[in-house]
Amino acid sequence: MCIIKLSPRQEKIIELVKDQAPITSEQLASKLNVTRAALRPDLAILTMTGILEAKPKVGYIYSRKPSHSLVYDYIMNIKVSDIMSKPVVVDENTTVYDAIVYLFLNDVGTLFIENKGILIGAVSRKDFLKVAIGSTDMHKIPVGIIMTRMPNIIFVEKDEVAYMAAKKIMEHEVDSLPVVEKCRDKLNNEVLKIIGKVSKTNITRLFVKIGENK
Amino acid sequence: MCIIKLSPRQEKIIELVKDQAPITSEQLASKLNVTRAALRPDLAILTMTGILEAKPKVGYIYSRKPSHSLVYDYIMNIKVSDIMSKPVVVDENTTVYDAIVYLFLNDVGTLFIENKGILIGAVSRKDFLKVAIGSTDMHKIPVGIIMTRMPNIIFVEKDEVAYMAAKKIMEHEVDSLPVVEKCRDKLNNEVLKIIGKVSKTNITRLFVKIGENK
Repeated sequence: MCIIKLSPRQEKIIELVKDQAPITSEQLASKLNVTRAALRPDLAILTMTGILEAKPKVGYIYSRKPSHSLVYDYIMNIKVSDIMSKPVVVDENTTVYDAIVYLFLNDVGTLFIENKGILIGAVSRKDFLKVAIGSTDMHKIPVGIIMTRMPNIIFVEKDEVAYMAAKKIMEHEVDSLPVVEKCRDKLNNEVLKIIGKVSKTNITRLFVKIGENK
Repeated sequence: MCIIKLSPRQEKIIELVKDQAPITSEQLASKLNVTRAALRPDLAILTMTGILEAKPKVGYIYSRKPSHSLVYDYIMNIKVSDIMSKPVVVDENTTVYDAIVYLFLNDVGTLFIENKGILIGAVSRKDFLKVAIGSTDMHKIPVGIIMTRMPNIIFVEKDEVAYMAAKKIMEHEVDSLPVVEKCRDKLNNEVLKIIGKVSKTNITRLFVKIGENK
């Protein structure tokens, strides 16, 4: 996969085609004051990328096919499993104070709460800070009391695209999503097993990697 | 600007050229069991994107020019000023408690501290939480006591690329950077005026926008 930067002439051709389609290569060449031969590489790249479509005996038209949305294609190839990191989990009976200490020890922004391997809740730095400025005794209250509880937790699965994780983070205004596997408990109810997490940090790291072209 | 996804055959051509350069289109065609004419569009796109270089009478070679790092080019066109948001600032005499309330009211993760329009410090949700679990009286201590103070604040300028902001966020393990303008005070010392901020949230939003191809 690679990204190409269109040249000013290629951008100009797209504008002309959008405006005056269908338009032949002769007409384009005359409007741009160049020869048809000079335009050939530009037209080749614009049709190969799917931005323009060449209709035989008619001319070039601007492609409205969704496939020309190539940035989208690129992003859609990066999966949650490519960028997720290890989740930090605690038991719901952990005190709020101990949970905060654990948050610092692991240097994360969100703790996930499990019961017998099943995801039951999540607590963020923001939730903890809200409790900390209240009059609650953090040494007595268990984290299970203050956590956001299932089914109110937004999650992703490992085969979803990383873009969807970023979209959910923005839409639901959370810092971190658990990556889960759906399974069944003894009563055949659907339950979630936590296998990873994707946070704004993972997305920022991904952005840096894309920029480094790794 | 647009992104193209290379076809499996194009990827295969790159591998062959990397391995056996210089290699002619006849040799490539015979290795891939296709006609030269069938390869022409693939070779056109690979040379136009700068991945391969065609040496007349020699053959194709793999381009080591930095210009073929095209993803990099794309990212390098997005500036800090394109993605920054409004910073939330308080005075250094604000109590820690009031600052936390202000943090929640504005729904941000970091407050910046100004003195007469000049950036002097920053406090994050993490810093506040650290104080909150200690024995400090949050109603008495001013935020100026607990803030990270200049010159220990990592910042960016508005004309830097967004990628650099993301890189600084990851390298220095911070959630948010102030966007500053350098100016001179009365004693001709360099000081910083805060004009925006870039956080992991801005980078995540940018990633979503790129995915939506906006």
